[in-house]
Amino acid sequence: VIPDPSITIATLTPEGTALAVTWGDGHASRFHAVWLRDNCPCPACGHPETGQRLVETGGLPADLRLADARVADDGAVEVVWAADGHRSRFAPDWLRRHCYCDADRTRRRPRLRSWRADGRRDLPEARYPDVVADPAALGAWLAAVEVYGFALLRGVPTVPGQVTRVAELFGHVRETNYGRLFDVRSVLNPNNLAYTGLALSGHTDNPYRDPAPTLQLLHCLASSAEGGDSTLTDAFELAERLRAEAPAAFDLLARVPVRFRFADKEAELEAEHPVITLDARGAVVAIRLNNRAKQPLDAAPAQVEPWYAAYRAFVALADSPAQQIRFTLAPGDLVCMGNLRMLHGRTAFAGTGERHLQGCYADMDGLRSRRAVLARG
Amino acid sequence: VIPDPSITIATLTPEGTALAVTWGDGHASRFHAVWLRDNCPCPACGHPETGQRLVETGGLPADLRLADARVADDGAVEVVWAADGHRSRFAPDWLRRHCYCDADRTRRRPRLRSWRADGRRDLPEARYPDVVADPAALGAWLAAVEVYGFALLRGVPTVPGQVTRVAELFGHVRETNYGRLFDVRSVLNPNNLAYTGLALSGHTDNPYRDPAPTLQLLHCLASSAEGGDSTLTDAFELAERLRAEAPAAFDLLARVPVRFRFADKEAELEAEHPVITLDARGAVVAIRLNNRAKQPLDAAPAQVEPWYAAYRAFVALADSPAQQIRFTLAPGDLVCMGNLRMLHGRTAFAGTGERHLQGCYADMDGLRSRRAVLARG
Repeated sequence: VIPDPSITIATLTPEGTALAVTWGDGHASRFHAVWLRDNCPCPACGHPETGQRLVETGGLPADLRLADARVADDGAVEVVWAADGHRSRFAPDWLRRHCYCDADRTRRRPRLRSWRADGRRDLPEARYPDVVADPAALGAWLAAVEVYGFALLRGVPTVPGQVTRVAELFGHVRETNYGRLFDVRSVLNPNNLAYTGLALSGHTDNPYRDPAPTLQLLHCLASSAEGGDSTLTDAFELAERLRAEAPAAFDLLARVPVRFRFADKEAELEAEHPVITLDARGAVVAIRLNNRAKQPLDAAPAQVEPWYAAYRAFVALADSPAQQIRFTLAPGDLVCMGNLRMLHGRTAFAGTGERHLQGCYADMDGLRSRRAVLARG
Repeated sequence: VIPDPSITIATLTPEGTALAVTWGDGHASRFHAVWLRDNCPCPACGHPETGQRLVETGGLPADLRLADARVADDGAVEVVWAADGHRSRFAPDWLRRHCYCDADRTRRRPRLRSWRADGRRDLPEARYPDVVADPAALGAWLAAVEVYGFALLRGVPTVPGQVTRVAELFGHVRETNYGRLFDVRSVLNPNNLAYTGLALSGHTDNPYRDPAPTLQLLHCLASSAEGGDSTLTDAFELAERLRAEAPAAFDLLARVPVRFRFADKEAELEAEHPVITLDARGAVVAIRLNNRAKQPLDAAPAQVEPWYAAYRAFVALADSPAQQIRFTLAPGDLVCMGNLRMLHGRTAFAGTGERHLQGCYADMDGLRSRRAVLARG
């Protein structure tokens, strides 16, 4: 067996407060002493059964120094600590996998893709009997939801309540004031515009909830009404277009909080978030766009008119047919989408005939967890 | 009846793209035309049954101007729009309540308070039979959880599963891979350090979940073991102290993402967030501190040592006994806490005797909703 040069140590240089490593493939890593000690995998520092850290990071000496470092016969890196003589042993593949040089950190960032921008025409979809029977089919379907933000499932039994059983294939239903599931159809005295036959412009659900559900499932039980076509728009893609074309507008939508609200007899929900939420690195991680639930803007007077102009620009992108994926849900079809990424909408539908969807919420972390467990094989 | 001067209009001055108002108490408001038109309450712009907005904000004309504005006999402000002759009518108390001048916006910001910093000695608590029987008692208890970040409930029946019934008094159980509820006691082959007799330093739960649950309930069923005292620390207060005393450290903890992870046979959960999450206005809205679940730091090399120093400073604040609220949970006691605000910990407990808690997760939005509905009277 030829050893993999990328996890073979060529040189090892203890530098007191850091350890410099060059690898067989020429890559250079540098690990700080405090980082190494915090990640010591010995049974005293990490719990052997749970894999959880036992050493209290906050209690590590402030002046950690390496007394010695060497490559053992089995290839492991052995470190001796100056302060207390503690010894740590690191597997070389673990070290290489956790190298935090700029290039490796950039490479490791998750990459989401846009179905539309990828030029795909066929929708990402699977058949219900397949994902129930075949873990690989389920894993591939979940991957589409995570990477592209949505996927369809065909041939789902048209049984009321089935939508929550689909959610339980990979995660946990997020119960809300609408219940474990909700019926989307035209009713008398609606408490929500969703329960009318009106068109709904592209929106994310429940921005008035905190935390908002990160996944939504909609399952079609009946669709004999005229109209009621479904639309999906990848709002992360829209946001990146806005960032490129109108950075000041993007910045306002990411900085100015908007209050969202839902109230009926049983509930009174309010939450405040900008339309675009960025993570600490500046990546777009959530979109809250719901014109129905938007409350009067409570922003600095100088921001009001520019914010409205930015909002208009963003909605214009969202309303562009070129950005929308349009399809018809037939009985037995189910769409699962990232609720803080994909705008979903519908065209108006007529009072004659029936259109009945059932929906439920769930969360992306459960989906990712199931995907990871399935990938273990 | 003497009219309330604060909602009586003294002068009304249409300025084309804005409406200037002075009130009977001398306060001055200025409402932009686009803001007014977006909030027109007429039945064509807002749905009369759901209270949701019908007018598409993105479709409003870009050059909205007031043609005329006057105070009607009933005190309402009537506006006529230049572009299309549309008329809007605003109640004066609604306008005053939504004035977005700097002073009013600052005044409206929610104020959380620190139980410890307020110098309180008695714990915020209520009796279970009271909150079940009396909506006002329930509302007051929920208010304590929201404002102070935690409250105790005494006299909760020591029946397994009771903890989820308490959650359902105000919200919805957040089901996770641990189930609808989980048992906290020492077990063989634990998948989590919580299920050992080890001490747990102050932490927030489930930082590896996205979204993390915002409320946690812990209900004591048995506590004959030696030790196992509970601690609570208001991490929002800690963060503000850090911001005041070491702004560079605060900034690093708010900017550098940390990966958290939990894995066992059934689940593999990972999420990445900074220790301190700020909202768009810079307010602290979430703390993720969980040394057990913290993964190797994946930060720019120049940030690694400063980040560790900042983390150490934050943990030193958290570990200070002066910052901790310490108490013993007896059978029938339940603590409900904001999971992204309060650090909870426990001292070690002995193998003899029994210590058995049941816990569940829920979310703050349901709690706030119930509080708001109860406040309607």
